[in-house]
Amino acid sequence: MQIKGFKFSTVEAAIKKPGRKDLALILSKVPAVCAATFTSNKVKAAPVLLGQERVADGILRAVVVNSGNANACTGEPGMAAARETARLVAEAAGVSEADVVPSSTGVIGVQMPMDRLSAAIPALVSGLADGTLDDVARAIMTTDTFPKISSRQGVAGGNAYTIAGVAKGAGMIRPDMATMLSFIVTDAAVEPTFLKNAFKSAVASSFNCITVDNDMSTNDTALIMANGMSGNAPIDAASPDAGQFAALLSEVALDLAKAIVKDGEGATKFVTINVSGAASGDDARLAAMAVANSPLVKTAFFGQDANWGRILAAVGYSGAAVEQSQVSLFFDDVQMVAGGLFVGGDAEKKGSEVLKKPEFAVNIDLALGNGRSTVYTSDFSYDYVKINADYRT
Amino acid sequence: MQIKGFKFSTVEAAIKKPGRKDLALILSKVPAVCAATFTSNKVKAAPVLLGQERVADGILRAVVVNSGNANACTGEPGMAAARETARLVAEAAGVSEADVVPSSTGVIGVQMPMDRLSAAIPALVSGLADGTLDDVARAIMTTDTFPKISSRQGVAGGNAYTIAGVAKGAGMIRPDMATMLSFIVTDAAVEPTFLKNAFKSAVASSFNCITVDNDMSTNDTALIMANGMSGNAPIDAASPDAGQFAALLSEVALDLAKAIVKDGEGATKFVTINVSGAASGDDARLAAMAVANSPLVKTAFFGQDANWGRILAAVGYSGAAVEQSQVSLFFDDVQMVAGGLFVGGDAEKKGSEVLKKPEFAVNIDLALGNGRSTVYTSDFSYDYVKINADYRT
Repeated sequence: MQIKGFKFSTVEAAIKKPGRKDLALILSKVPAVCAATFTSNKVKAAPVLLGQERVADGILRAVVVNSGNANACTGEPGMAAARETARLVAEAAGVSEADVVPSSTGVIGVQMPMDRLSAAIPALVSGLADGTLDDVARAIMTTDTFPKISSRQGVAGGNAYTIAGVAKGAGMIRPDMATMLSFIVTDAAVEPTFLKNAFKSAVASSFNCITVDNDMSTNDTALIMANGMSGNAPIDAASPDAGQFAALLSEVALDLAKAIVKDGEGATKFVTINVSGAASGDDARLAAMAVANSPLVKTAFFGQDANWGRILAAVGYSGAAVEQSQVSLFFDDVQMVAGGLFVGGDAEKKGSEVLKKPEFAVNIDLALGNGRSTVYTSDFSYDYVKINADYRT
Repeated sequence: MQIKGFKFSTVEAAIKKPGRKDLALILSKVPAVCAATFTSNKVKAAPVLLGQERVADGILRAVVVNSGNANACTGEPGMAAARETARLVAEAAGVSEADVVPSSTGVIGVQMPMDRLSAAIPALVSGLADGTLDDVARAIMTTDTFPKISSRQGVAGGNAYTIAGVAKGAGMIRPDMATMLSFIVTDAAVEPTFLKNAFKSAVASSFNCITVDNDMSTNDTALIMANGMSGNAPIDAASPDAGQFAALLSEVALDLAKAIVKDGEGATKFVTINVSGAASGDDARLAAMAVANSPLVKTAFFGQDANWGRILAAVGYSGAAVEQSQVSLFFDDVQMVAGGLFVGGDAEKKGSEVLKKPEFAVNIDLALGNGRSTVYTSDFSYDYVKINADYRT
């Protein structure tokens, strides 16, 4: 897949240990308009602090990402390492340091091995000749079991463009945002404010609607670069092509977000929680998130148990307005609860059949208003515990 | 153990299935001053709704508790069953219906088997002749693996008094409040407002400081009855004996709360999270709760992994004010983090030794103010998943 004017490269720097490519570079031939969102965790990794500074002017040339070390809780030496990483790439690639953002994922609290990293930069930059976005998706994996990549193609003012993105993330996942990194590139020409708003909207309905374990990391990052190399007139809010661009961007982000959930540590189920009829959108989200984060609900999903009682209890403590006698609940299209009461009959049997599927929906209506929210989550299995009890920093 | 003027009884009503005593009665010979707190879950079980009504006048004679059925999400028939249960006990025991509170724990969404329950009332009341509080502690167990009971003795105005309580709860545990039921009785004479305040304070520092899985149930109840049969002059806020009473009550409540955590479903660790130096008490609690509820932190506890990074990440997303460079963290007295950075040396080795203990503390200082909070929690093990994936309504 080619996205005009973007080049990619990956090398093995052996950041944590040897044996795989763990350092990646995304470079735009020309300065690209950019937008980004970062973790709201008050403990922020050095690359996040530096990234926030560098995207502020809305222009980027390159992102250099490493796995194996999050460069978090590393203090001043960590900030220096983040700056040095960007500086080395800028120098080798012939671009301005201020237009290079570093990004990291991996263990917390260990200083970056700058000797190994700097030794890998020359090969990283020369590798731009033949690297692919797919290589990048693989290089940024940590506990992921498959690479996450998505793309769409659109047309603006007669010019074809591509939007393509990669993401990583499997555990420590919960908006805003999760330990996920996501980098999206497009060769469309996009006006800065429109790009910012379209990206914000795409992130809100995708990366901020997933949760694996309600843990939010120190490193979360989602970033987009639009370099205009497809030659179209820049898309802005008034363009006839604006709607298509925003929709395609949202689709790419949602594909990536769902892939993260599907790769949730130890996950055996992909569950869509739909809340409707809430008193407000905020209430709908509170309810959906409470259900999606409840350990009792998630272990029931793992056990393939059509346990609506635990789901109602989660809705009840979510903080959303609830009238017990108004609530209805379905697993897919099998109604379990009407007017707050179990419907009886063969609902339990039919509900259990739904829970046996690898993917299903929980549809909850609160009948108090028009608030809606959709959250995607996975189950809690033995493997989630095993992976996280054994994973050592 | 005798608490003057209180009688206890337990029988087998086979609410869910036969083979154990599942119906209990606590009766005071004379009207008792009472105070209670109930779940803040917006989905409330019928006995909770009725209990809230009946404790409002501050006077109680009896509490009738069943396990095996929560009488939650049961609508009008459930409310009728709750009222009928209380009425039958009142009639058989010769007390006013308005002074009897029902309480239930168990499966959600199944109507109470009133035929079996009402058939058991005569034996329940005649059993008051020789029942014990220990019997009650056993009859209210659901997934508990041991009965929870605690008592203290004090002296007021020269009269000895006893405070004794029982509790149940192991899963679906998180303040405010957890699926826990707790009933505390005392033969001390206590002035109503003082009892209310002392109880509120005892609950705040005990039952509201525990979490097993951050799930809050539809049935949580903590209740105290003080019948004055020890003959002292009623203790009020101005009494010289007030401090001792409040302290002993808090101790009983804390014993019970800790016992609930120790019995956390699948728990292998009892962990005390102490946060100090927060910008406020609220902030301290936010931070302590985030740590205590983080699946990544709790699986690390299970894995005996001295993983301070996950703990810092939880503090960072808790909502509490945090200055990364000011945070220190200890496992017991082993310092892991100073000024937001790992201390290095043999800290990891020493920290790991602490994590091998069945009980340990995580001490976090934020160095921003004087806010403090202590929360008790357990780890997340394979057994937590197993118990909850297999437990069918």
